[in-house]
Amino acid sequence: MPHLLTIEPLTEAAFAPFGTVIEADPASMHLINGGSTERFHALAYADMTGDGARVIINIFRGQPRSFPYRLTMMERHPLGSQSFSPIGGGPWLAVVAPDDGGKPGLPRVFLATGSQGVNYGRNVWHHPLMAVDAVSDFLVVDRDGPGNNLVEVFYDEPFIIPNPV
Amino acid sequence: MPHLLTIEPLTEAAFAPFGTVIEADPASMHLINGGSTERFHALAYADMTGDGARVIINIFRGQPRSFPYRLTMMERHPLGSQSFSPIGGGPWLAVVAPDDGGKPGLPRVFLATGSQGVNYGRNVWHHPLMAVDAVSDFLVVDRDGPGNNLVEVFYDEPFIIPNPV
Repeated sequence: MPHLLTIEPLTEAAFAPFGTVIEADPASMHLINGGSTERFHALAYADMTGDGARVIINIFRGQPRSFPYRLTMMERHPLGSQSFSPIGGGPWLAVVAPDDGGKPGLPRVFLATGSQGVNYGRNVWHHPLMAVDAVSDFLVVDRDGPGNNLVEVFYDEPFIIPNPV
Repeated sequence: MPHLLTIEPLTEAAFAPFGTVIEADPASMHLINGGSTERFHALAYADMTGDGARVIINIFRGQPRSFPYRLTMMERHPLGSQSFSPIGGGPWLAVVAPDDGGKPGLPRVFLATGSQGVNYGRNVWHHPLMAVDAVSDFLVVDRDGPGNNLVEVFYDEPFIIPNPV
């Protein structure tokens, strides 16, 4: 039997080993523009390395996954962090794993609301974009430049992510 | 009489002197993640200078402006670009100006849809965030670090932006 994973709510504390949560956290707010704008400051940092690295802004349009989802692989980006922020979409899953001697360990599955983004830390194992309900657009901040910035590893045995909704 | 400004639709070509438009442009699309995701690649670059500069991701929550709007000032950021992408919001205004000998020239007013963001180029004159209909959240990619990154200049005479909707 494949290992059935548990879905956790996405919180800053629980996600801390893997990156940061990008949401309108009152603790990070200060007023700007003569009081007309609330600025939630520095929710994430783009962490890029390597000669010729540039920070780029992209849009990813993800097809919804089918659940139960059979998780077979993880990827990571050795040269840069990668953020995902939903643009008008609903809930989605941020799936990560601790490193286990150069391979991904036991996956953790975080259910994010449509108001929550994440920034995956550089070299943190994560699953490709996992939209839940519908085709969903995300603003993605990551790295452009020379060097191999993608490592993919397949698990020996798949894991199962239950239907999150 | 204050100068009444004209509102233009936001297009990549018209906005080119001031920065780039961040939207899901089919010309920039390629499939990733085994075909499950459309990546609209490198819609904007973060252009940051100065020692200790870091690229940060923020959320700005803007109060809607009242129209006709009396435009009295512009600002620019000498040390970094600044992007604004609406998160689930409606139309908004990107207001910019060419440089005129170190001061902002005649403003240009671009009406962006809720699916269009922009990246203001480094040192490009622009007005602070201008939401139209409702309180609106934007993902903002800009610069953190030492140095003075904000210049504000007031016009001798105000301009008027008509109601865009």
